[in-house]
Amino acid sequence: MDKNRKEIKDLGEFGLIDHLTSSFSTYQQPSTYVGVGDDAAVIDLGNEYLLVSTDMLVEGIHFDLAYTPLHHLGYKAVAVNISDIAAMNGKPEQITISIAISNRFSVEALEQVYEGVTAACTNYAIDLVGGDTTSSTSGLVISITAIGRVAKNKLVQRKGAKANDVICVTGDLGAAYMGLQILEREKEVFLTNPEMQPNLEVYDYLVGRILKPEARTDVVFDMAEKNILPTAMIDVSDGLASELFHICKQNNLGFRIYEDKIPVDNQTYETAIEFKIDPITCALNGGEDYELLFSIPQSEIEKIKLHPDIHMIGYFHANTQERIMVTKQGNSVAVQAQGWTHF
Amino acid sequence: MDKNRKEIKDLGEFGLIDHLTSSFSTYQQPSTYVGVGDDAAVIDLGNEYLLVSTDMLVEGIHFDLAYTPLHHLGYKAVAVNISDIAAMNGKPEQITISIAISNRFSVEALEQVYEGVTAACTNYAIDLVGGDTTSSTSGLVISITAIGRVAKNKLVQRKGAKANDVICVTGDLGAAYMGLQILEREKEVFLTNPEMQPNLEVYDYLVGRILKPEARTDVVFDMAEKNILPTAMIDVSDGLASELFHICKQNNLGFRIYEDKIPVDNQTYETAIEFKIDPITCALNGGEDYELLFSIPQSEIEKIKLHPDIHMIGYFHANTQERIMVTKQGNSVAVQAQGWTHF
Repeated sequence: MDKNRKEIKDLGEFGLIDHLTSSFSTYQQPSTYVGVGDDAAVIDLGNEYLLVSTDMLVEGIHFDLAYTPLHHLGYKAVAVNISDIAAMNGKPEQITISIAISNRFSVEALEQVYEGVTAACTNYAIDLVGGDTTSSTSGLVISITAIGRVAKNKLVQRKGAKANDVICVTGDLGAAYMGLQILEREKEVFLTNPEMQPNLEVYDYLVGRILKPEARTDVVFDMAEKNILPTAMIDVSDGLASELFHICKQNNLGFRIYEDKIPVDNQTYETAIEFKIDPITCALNGGEDYELLFSIPQSEIEKIKLHPDIHMIGYFHANTQERIMVTKQGNSVAVQAQGWTHF
Repeated sequence: MDKNRKEIKDLGEFGLIDHLTSSFSTYQQPSTYVGVGDDAAVIDLGNEYLLVSTDMLVEGIHFDLAYTPLHHLGYKAVAVNISDIAAMNGKPEQITISIAISNRFSVEALEQVYEGVTAACTNYAIDLVGGDTTSSTSGLVISITAIGRVAKNKLVQRKGAKANDVICVTGDLGAAYMGLQILEREKEVFLTNPEMQPNLEVYDYLVGRILKPEARTDVVFDMAEKNILPTAMIDVSDGLASELFHICKQNNLGFRIYEDKIPVDNQTYETAIEFKIDPITCALNGGEDYELLFSIPQSEIEKIKLHPDIHMIGYFHANTQERIMVTKQGNSVAVQAQGWTHF
C-alpha cells in the first residue's frame, strides 16, 4: 500500500466535499447564480430563481433495512430533498428519482419504495418527472433531485445573517437521533432473541421522526404569509451545532444560544435519560431532524413570537470566537460541532 | 420463498419502469409539461422549457473498474446525461453529481473521477452546481442530473414522427459495443496471464467509444444553424433497434431501414468479423453509442444531405407491423429489439 495515499475518512465528509469542489467555484453559464455550497443550487431564470437539490441514500450507510419499512424509505428520500428546497425559502415542484436495486429485492419491494415516493409527492404537491431504475451488485441506493422555484427577492441563502440577528429553529430537535437509538437497540434485542417482540409504541414519536421525517414547507408558507424574510437559513440535517457552524463560517459570525430555549420534546428528553445521554447533546449533535434553522433581524421578533412552532434560541455575535451555549444554570460552555460522519 | 413473488428480471428494465411509473402520469404542478417517458423531463418556465435528465451508473453493472480509468468514468457520467438533453434538442447548462464510494478508494481515486467531470464540464460549457459525496458499503455509484433549456418552439420529443418521415442517425453505430468486447477479452487474457501486456492501439477508436463517449451537442447546434427541426428524436443508448421501437411505439408507426445506409466504422466492421459477429447486429443491438436518432420531413432532405455526420437510413411507415431492414442483397428481414438488460 502507498503510505502517501490520502484516506477519505481523514478528510471527513465536509472536508472531502470542500476538497473536491474547490475547482468548481467559477462558472461558465451566466444562468448559474449559486453553485456548490448551499442547501440547493440557484439558477437564474430571468424573472425568478430555480432551485436544485440532490441527495443520495445508501443502504447500510443512511438506512438499515432491518428496521426501515421500504415505503417510509421512499417517503423520506423525497422529504429530505424537499427540506433543502424549503431551506432556500423555495417552493418545491418536481423531483426525479434514480434507484439501484439488486435482484434480492422483488418487484413488490420496489413498489413499496414507490408507494412512499407517491405519498410524499401527494403530500408536498410535487410531481415525479423522471428517473432511472437500475440493477445493483449489492445494496439499495436511492438518489433524488428536487427542483423548486423562488421569487428573486424571497431567496434565502446560508449567507446573509448579521451580528445580533435572532437565531430561530422550528419544531423540536434530537428526536430523530433518539429514534435511531431505539431502533438500534431493538435490532440488537431481536438478533439476540428473535422471539422477542419489540414494543415501539411508547417511542412512537421518536421512531416516526427518524423513519418518516417531514420537510418544513409549512413554516416557509407561514413566514411568507406573515411577510417574514429570514436573513439566512439552513435545514438541520447534521445537528444544530454543525448547522450553526456552517452559517457562522459563511457570515464570519459567532453565536450565543440558550439551553433552556432549545426545543426538546418530552419523549426525547425522557428517552435520552433512559439511555444515559444528555438530552441537549441529542439536540446539538443528533442529526436528521430536518427542521429549519434561520435568523431574523431583531425588528422582526414581534411577527414571529406567537408562532407555536418557531423557537428563538439565541443570537449571532460579531466575534467569530464566540460559540457559546448558556446552560440552564447560567454557565457559558463552548459548543463543539460534531455532525454526522459517514466515512 | 414466496412463489408468487414477482422477480425484477422478469419485467426487464423498460417493463419495470413502465410498471412503477404508471401511476405518475397525472401531474399536480402546472409547470410539469412532460414527465416520465422521454429522454428528459420538460418543465414549463413560461417563456421557455427547462429540461431535466438523470442517470445512475453502478460499478459492476454499467462499468468495470478493471479496465475503466476513473477520469473517463467521470467524463462519461456527464456525457451520457448531456446526451439526453441534446436528444430533446436542448442546450445543457448545469449538472449535479452524487457519488457513493467505499473506503477501498483513496481521495486520489475520487479526484480522478472529478477530473473527468471537470473535463466534461469544460468541453460542454456547463457548470457543476451541486451534489453529494457519501460512503458506500461496496461499489462505486455515480448519479448525475443534467439541466438544460430549449425555446418552446424548438423542443423535440420522442413523440412527433409521422409516416414517411426520413429516419436519420448521427456518427456511426456499434463501435462502443465492439470496444466493450475488446476490453472484456483483454481482461480475460490478463486474468489468465498477468504478464501479458494488452495491445489496444489497433482498437483505439472502439475502446474510446465505450470508455469516453461524446454527446452530440455539435449536431444539435448544426441543425439549429441550418434551421432543421426534427419531428422526433432520441439518443442511441440501448442500440438502434431498441430506440426505433421506442419512437414507433410513441407514434404508432413502423419503419423500413436499409442495411447499406447504416453507418458502421471500418474498425467496427473488421473487429466484428474478427469476433465472428455480424457487424450490422452490433449497430442494431449494441448499446452506448450515444449518437442521435431522429426523423425529418422529406421536405427537409436537401438541408441535411450534405452534413458529413448525419446519415439517412430509412423512413417511418404507417403500418405499425412493418419493422423491416432491407439487406444489402435486397431481402426484407424483420428487426428485433434487444437493447440492454441489466437485470
